[in-house]
Amino acid sequence: MSEQTPLDPAADDSRGLPDGDPFGLPEGDPFGPHNLPYGVFSLAGEGDALRRVGVRLGSYVLDAGAAAAALGSPYVSLLARPTLNPLLAAGRTAWSDVRRALTAWVTVPAHRDAVRPLLHPLSDVTLHLPFEVADYVDFYASEHHATHLGQIFRPDAPTPLTPNWKHLPIGYHGRSGTVVVSGTEVVRPTGQRKAPADSAPVFGPSVRLDIEAEVGFVVGAPSAHGTPVPLADFREHVFGLCLLNDWSARDIQAWEYVPLGPFLGKSFATSVSAWITPLEALDTARVSPPERTHQLLPYLDDSAESVADEPGGYDLRMTVTLNGQVISEPPFSTVYWTAAQQLAHMTVNGASLRTGDLYGSGTVSGPSAGQYGSLIEITWNGRDPLELPDGKRTFLEDGDEVTLSAWAPGPDGTRVGLGEVTGRITAAR
Amino acid sequence: MSEQTPLDPAADDSRGLPDGDPFGLPEGDPFGPHNLPYGVFSLAGEGDALRRVGVRLGSYVLDAGAAAAALGSPYVSLLARPTLNPLLAAGRTAWSDVRRALTAWVTVPAHRDAVRPLLHPLSDVTLHLPFEVADYVDFYASEHHATHLGQIFRPDAPTPLTPNWKHLPIGYHGRSGTVVVSGTEVVRPTGQRKAPADSAPVFGPSVRLDIEAEVGFVVGAPSAHGTPVPLADFREHVFGLCLLNDWSARDIQAWEYVPLGPFLGKSFATSVSAWITPLEALDTARVSPPERTHQLLPYLDDSAESVADEPGGYDLRMTVTLNGQVISEPPFSTVYWTAAQQLAHMTVNGASLRTGDLYGSGTVSGPSAGQYGSLIEITWNGRDPLELPDGKRTFLEDGDEVTLSAWAPGPDGTRVGLGEVTGRITAAR
Repeated sequence: MSEQTPLDPAADDSRGLPDGDPFGLPEGDPFGPHNLPYGVFSLAGEGDALRRVGVRLGSYVLDAGAAAAALGSPYVSLLARPTLNPLLAAGRTAWSDVRRALTAWVTVPAHRDAVRPLLHPLSDVTLHLPFEVADYVDFYASEHHATHLGQIFRPDAPTPLTPNWKHLPIGYHGRSGTVVVSGTEVVRPTGQRKAPADSAPVFGPSVRLDIEAEVGFVVGAPSAHGTPVPLADFREHVFGLCLLNDWSARDIQAWEYVPLGPFLGKSFATSVSAWITPLEALDTARVSPPERTHQLLPYLDDSAESVADEPGGYDLRMTVTLNGQVISEPPFSTVYWTAAQQLAHMTVNGASLRTGDLYGSGTVSGPSAGQYGSLIEITWNGRDPLELPDGKRTFLEDGDEVTLSAWAPGPDGTRVGLGEVTGRITAAR
Repeated sequence: MSEQTPLDPAADDSRGLPDGDPFGLPEGDPFGPHNLPYGVFSLAGEGDALRRVGVRLGSYVLDAGAAAAALGSPYVSLLARPTLNPLLAAGRTAWSDVRRALTAWVTVPAHRDAVRPLLHPLSDVTLHLPFEVADYVDFYASEHHATHLGQIFRPDAPTPLTPNWKHLPIGYHGRSGTVVVSGTEVVRPTGQRKAPADSAPVFGPSVRLDIEAEVGFVVGAPSAHGTPVPLADFREHVFGLCLLNDWSARDIQAWEYVPLGPFLGKSFATSVSAWITPLEALDTARVSPPERTHQLLPYLDDSAESVADEPGGYDLRMTVTLNGQVISEPPFSTVYWTAAQQLAHMTVNGASLRTGDLYGSGTVSGPSAGQYGSLIEITWNGRDPLELPDGKRTFLEDGDEVTLSAWAPGPDGTRVGLGEVTGRITAAR
């Protein structure tokens, strides 16, 4: 077997990786040993009881707990588990140590024989929700997205952004119980809607079902109730990130949201990718956030000396496809409020963090056409339908499948792939 | 020892109840065998590892799992546990069976010797958060409360209620990670506020810290994702209720809440009573809700034949005290939207329920002065300060202690006591 052999499971009856170094992975694979995102998997036919932590390598999944056991590693207690939560709770030093160990297991030739049988082709595994979600918060951190929605819904307002927008990252709590893993079908939600011309609300399946292309941040280490988490402590608490699709029923949301915010228009489903990329894999993707146009209060001011050497943005190049057609490429680097600012804001009132807290960036939209993260922006509230091979779209139709994917600049010209998040709409029940 | 002996632990060195039937409880005790609310306790010095389910009887706590074990009951698997979640998850038939068993254990004289040593005076126990909160939702279901806030904040609007208010129970998700048990101190939250006259937001401790007197409903049996829970299935899913204080920083909330609703103004703490009263203990307290002024969509219409024989209201007489002074007596029976309607609405979009979901009614306010469930109403946004022995109050000051208590009509002229929820404000950190 040559080093050029692709990662074809059929080519290797040991179900491991072909020969070569590092283990024969094609050069430049976005899921190479520089990435190593975490998920939870089981093998076909095993059932839920055998869920366990997996680490993605190319188009394979390493049974991480089994590898730890085979190699006599103490991290078996963090990795031979049915969710990522024990690893998440272990804290930053442990995250680094485990990642260093994993890197060695998949790159040092001496480990090859032990590790190879523990690599399973992606096509053989079922991927599960990788962690137990504690609280789920969704922000509204993209200036371009917020501006577009202001232009659509408040065309006569003096400015498209609300007066608070540049002073704090606006957010709200969502439903953690309906966060689902990529691949889960999304049932079209039913509910009340009322157009201005309607005399009374109408009940039925949503007719304005939308996507929101987002990045989700996963909290590992908890914080004490009553004590804010400063900007500089972001990486002590946040383990990694995922892609997130915050499905939104615009018609349900429009009727319900005054005065207490979105509720049923969002709570039916939120999809996350099966792979959580540790922040350590994204050090080469860090960038400064957009220039701040307002003086920020100290707890949010990331121009301060103590944090300015840790740029808070991430250069994630996102792609949105609808039934396989690319419909948008939102640039995460254009998001105004950083994940560190969101964390500092979320806790400034003393709210505590728990292991498994998840917070979304809000829809990621760039300034230009082709960079919008929701259909309401892409079609400008339905005015400019998308032309797809199977017809026009304003909002989602039953059977439509939406996939978010992304990559970030890695070391030495490589790419760091993020796990995709996909979901197909099924008819209302 | 006579039947008249009060439940004084010092009077009985077996630390059980005095003689008599049922076990010498004073007649008419609101925590008599007709009540039997559930909590989680540990004894002084035992530490968290020995948390276990307790059932309140008078001023005693029955170690329910130990009683089950002593009496050879199969319910030891539901009761000898550190949270109520296993019991909650067991479903309505199990709830009834366990309650029937408990009633026998504390009333049948033959069980007296076995049960008595397992009763601990309340003064000897530490009460813990009784269940693991899954999602927390807060509604806005009192017409009087919503009307008062409309009058205060939108005095020029044509009507104080928003157009959607009579068509659906407005709600939003809150932070489940900061739900705390009665007695937990509440640290004054810090955050941004901006009065209309301020040119920029100001940062500091909240200066308009308020209470919201609410009733919380606790979900036991989960529901399938994608399938709404109809009105008639309310009691298949909801196990019981508690008192709930949704502490609110009005100044933080006012600046942040447009357009996505309350966030940091609420998320710093929500206090619940240590005792969960099973709905079965409140059958005598069921009342019809207020007359509906609008035709409701079928999924919310509780005048329909299938559910009209199960009145959806509960006659809970609430009392709010501030530093021991009664400041309000909100009548829960005046709340417009019932808990069954809230559940039907919360799931009509297909959102699933999980064991441990908690939803609050929203502030309970009656129509009259003396019945308002928040300081912003009681003082009419600070215009009419409360006169207390230690001075005037518009909003809460550091050191203030707020207690919500309540009772409901029980069988034969008795009262069913609800566990109180209390909290003291400590200075911002």
